[in-house]
Amino acid sequence: MKEFELIKEYFSFSQSTSGTVVEGIGDDCAVLSVPDKRQLVTSVDTLVDGVHFFSDTAPADIAYKSLAVNVSDLAAMGAKPLGFTLAIALPKVDEAWLKAFSSGLQQASNDFAIPLIGGDTTQGPLTITVNVLGSVKADKAMLRKSAQLDDDIWVTGHVGDAAAALGLYEKAQSSDLNEAESYLLQRLLRPNPPITFAKKLAKLAHSAIDISDGLLADLGHILEQSRCSAKIKIGSLPLSEQLIQCVGLEQAREYALNGGDDYELCFTAKHSMRNKILNLAEDFKVNVHRIGTIMDEEKGNLQLVLNGKPYQSKRPGWQHFSE
Amino acid sequence: MKEFELIKEYFSFSQSTSGTVVEGIGDDCAVLSVPDKRQLVTSVDTLVDGVHFFSDTAPADIAYKSLAVNVSDLAAMGAKPLGFTLAIALPKVDEAWLKAFSSGLQQASNDFAIPLIGGDTTQGPLTITVNVLGSVKADKAMLRKSAQLDDDIWVTGHVGDAAAALGLYEKAQSSDLNEAESYLLQRLLRPNPPITFAKKLAKLAHSAIDISDGLLADLGHILEQSRCSAKIKIGSLPLSEQLIQCVGLEQAREYALNGGDDYELCFTAKHSMRNKILNLAEDFKVNVHRIGTIMDEEKGNLQLVLNGKPYQSKRPGWQHFSE
Repeated sequence: MKEFELIKEYFSFSQSTSGTVVEGIGDDCAVLSVPDKRQLVTSVDTLVDGVHFFSDTAPADIAYKSLAVNVSDLAAMGAKPLGFTLAIALPKVDEAWLKAFSSGLQQASNDFAIPLIGGDTTQGPLTITVNVLGSVKADKAMLRKSAQLDDDIWVTGHVGDAAAALGLYEKAQSSDLNEAESYLLQRLLRPNPPITFAKKLAKLAHSAIDISDGLLADLGHILEQSRCSAKIKIGSLPLSEQLIQCVGLEQAREYALNGGDDYELCFTAKHSMRNKILNLAEDFKVNVHRIGTIMDEEKGNLQLVLNGKPYQSKRPGWQHFSE
Repeated sequence: MKEFELIKEYFSFSQSTSGTVVEGIGDDCAVLSVPDKRQLVTSVDTLVDGVHFFSDTAPADIAYKSLAVNVSDLAAMGAKPLGFTLAIALPKVDEAWLKAFSSGLQQASNDFAIPLIGGDTTQGPLTITVNVLGSVKADKAMLRKSAQLDDDIWVTGHVGDAAAALGLYEKAQSSDLNEAESYLLQRLLRPNPPITFAKKLAKLAHSAIDISDGLLADLGHILEQSRCSAKIKIGSLPLSEQLIQCVGLEQAREYALNGGDDYELCFTAKHSMRNKILNLAEDFKVNVHRIGTIMDEEKGNLQLVLNGKPYQSKRPGWQHFSE
């Protein structure tokens, strides 16, 4: 099958477009309208076979996650999705694989209301790069540098589930998982960034970041760029019942702080916004928890507190190239 | 070296921004302004080690080409560059390699006046994906579907050089190349898409495509999408002296028709635009040649003519996954 037919067949599924796609797939570039008084936001993430997913992960899950992790970056800005491009390197043309991959991609495209607008298919080791585009009201993006003194620090959903699930993937190949384990594995395979909630949150919050590298590492970026410090109440970390059931409270806290791959949001906002944020979260069926406060002493410092005493975490946030 | 330091060190070179970058590298997304009454255009291309470049190609050349082939897609729309993201998978952290790659990227970024606005660095087999963003005046992009009956068919620069150079790369490792061979190799390694010319051309031309897969294959896309046919005068193909000197006239024509990797433009325009196009080309020091005519008989048919007689090309355009 020729490249063009292949792309046509598997990547031209029907899509929920937002009316902003003027020309989609099929020309040298896609053409989009960016609504008046809005700015464009863009981000890119690559998933590599054996690094970001297991080689035998279901193609539909790989596809879903490839888009979800990028939509998570749009959510962190409070952006409305406009479209995404997909660059995929494939070792060979495997129609069954492509069909399954395409179905997972289509599901994510529908779930997050973001259309596929362009792509590139090449021969090579399995590598998937998604570039997302979105729009924000001019100068209203939630930036890492905009946290303010005394802001509450919030987290959406639960953290730590995905990290705990890493160890479950192999187990699932040889034996049945219990209900809690299956839940955790699903959290790893199918991230669900709170994109519609985040779009409205941009009016209420000062700063935000998505939790992809672990809460401490990612909150650290807010502290660095906002030149401030923070106090985190370990007892307030949002941990799922399933996580505690599977790994125990202590390990659950470690995964929540340093685990990564959660694709939830960490954001900061004024005290006076508390009720509005809680109401918004209820409207969008998103869990939110206040876990700490932005401070200005010892800039960059992250103070962890449990029952009024300092809490010592085992290791710093995740890095791609660790020493 | 940690990932974040690595990205900071090698991908934060000073850049010629167009004033449209509100937030560059360092947040979940970059933020851009798209000028009023303009539309956004975007395209993505991946270069894979061993497929799109030789494993021992100089890192600066790999970087330069990764951006140039994407800028070529912007040129094909008549777009003004806004910015680009870079997703790169690296087998290991090699500082010398990164330094050289970064210098080539910076040079291309300057040459094409397009700033780096975001990226992702991952561990994996060497794979480079660039996503470019640009803007066009609303509804003025040069589309593949917009060729008109009786349009002249034009080509910029020379075609066929890059295909001929493929065979020279290996030779260059063991022996000196003569002047003509060196010229051809440079054409392969450092594509120079006519981006500033193309921006102005959008007012004069009906349709355009970049010649990345070979003139016949790419012109074929215009014919398919514009539902028309074309006659090409083989004697009018723009062939460089160096190409003819190295491979002879007959093989030069084959490379020009089917070679690929040229990153020149093929575009169509009304007869009445001839003088304006020639003047514009002179202003921007771009060579342009008229090579044929758009017709409406036998839609999709590409008629090749040499000295009034049909000319038979050896093979159809290049495909990634050939049967």
